[in-house]
Amino acid sequence: MARGLVLLFTGEGKGKTTAALGTALRAWGHGMRILFLQFVKGERVMTGERLAASRLGGGFILETMGAGFIFGREKEERHREAARRAWERAKEAVSSGEYDLVVLDEFTYVLRYGFVSMAEVEEMVRSRPAGVHLIFTGRGAPQELIDLADTVTEMREVKHHYRQGISAQKGIEY
Amino acid sequence: MARGLVLLFTGEGKGKTTAALGTALRAWGHGMRILFLQFVKGERVMTGERLAASRLGGGFILETMGAGFIFGREKEERHREAARRAWERAKEAVSSGEYDLVVLDEFTYVLRYGFVSMAEVEEMVRSRPAGVHLIFTGRGAPQELIDLADTVTEMREVKHHYRQGISAQKGIEY
Repeated sequence: MARGLVLLFTGEGKGKTTAALGTALRAWGHGMRILFLQFVKGERVMTGERLAASRLGGGFILETMGAGFIFGREKEERHREAARRAWERAKEAVSSGEYDLVVLDEFTYVLRYGFVSMAEVEEMVRSRPAGVHLIFTGRGAPQELIDLADTVTEMREVKHHYRQGISAQKGIEY
Repeated sequence: MARGLVLLFTGEGKGKTTAALGTALRAWGHGMRILFLQFVKGERVMTGERLAASRLGGGFILETMGAGFIFGREKEERHREAARRAWERAKEAVSSGEYDLVVLDEFTYVLRYGFVSMAEVEEMVRSRPAGVHLIFTGRGAPQELIDLADTVTEMREVKHHYRQGISAQKGIEY
């Protein structure tokens, strides 16, 4: 079996989660089993990717495991708990060999806040079954994650319609 | 009805077609009608996106209209004919209002070779029904296309596994 790849989509521009979704769709087309784990997004917003996954059937599982946009005093603790739960889920899913592709969406935030350490990530990546592909997404990936990945794309924002006063549009952006 | 957006994914890095696929998947999740036109890819390779689209049903149409990788003396003429056919299909699909999102994948190549002019593109974009979203992809987008788009992301290659001797992998890259 060919060695699985580690892909990283980072940078400030649009298209990181969407490129991961597109890669997952392509893999699903080939009959691969997909687990798409969202580390920051919570259950509150019914996004297009959740609606789509629910129509794709058992081969394409999407789980929103983040605490979402929350406020208040216990905010950080709730984010930490959600991140650790998602991380345990990711590790178990990767090592189980049940999925050909596991996406860790918006994972860089979890690293930045120290909820998961790079040592844990390296251990997971290095010890995974040979054929399992991984995708990490999120802004500001640390150099160690870039070093660990086989392919890294930085999405650079050239122009954004928010800046022109047009707000986020359902269907296209969430 | 909100005005449709014009998105452009360009640059040398991975993730342009994939980000367009991901955006289309998300839109499909919301029940939007998608036409994904591939301007360069031909029929020869059964890619993951074609396999996926065939499983998504009538709301997600993907058509490979390019001449693909061809050789020989009449190469340019065959690419030109394929590009013009795809362009006529795109214009008709956009103006019909039958689709909420039309993707013109790898369209910058068609511009670069002069098979379609920017004046034609501007006319199509400006005269389209209000709600229709458009996505253009491909390397080396000309400034006029950047000016025309609402949101532009440049995919910058930070690192690529091809350079490390690992070849393209089915399911992940095509």
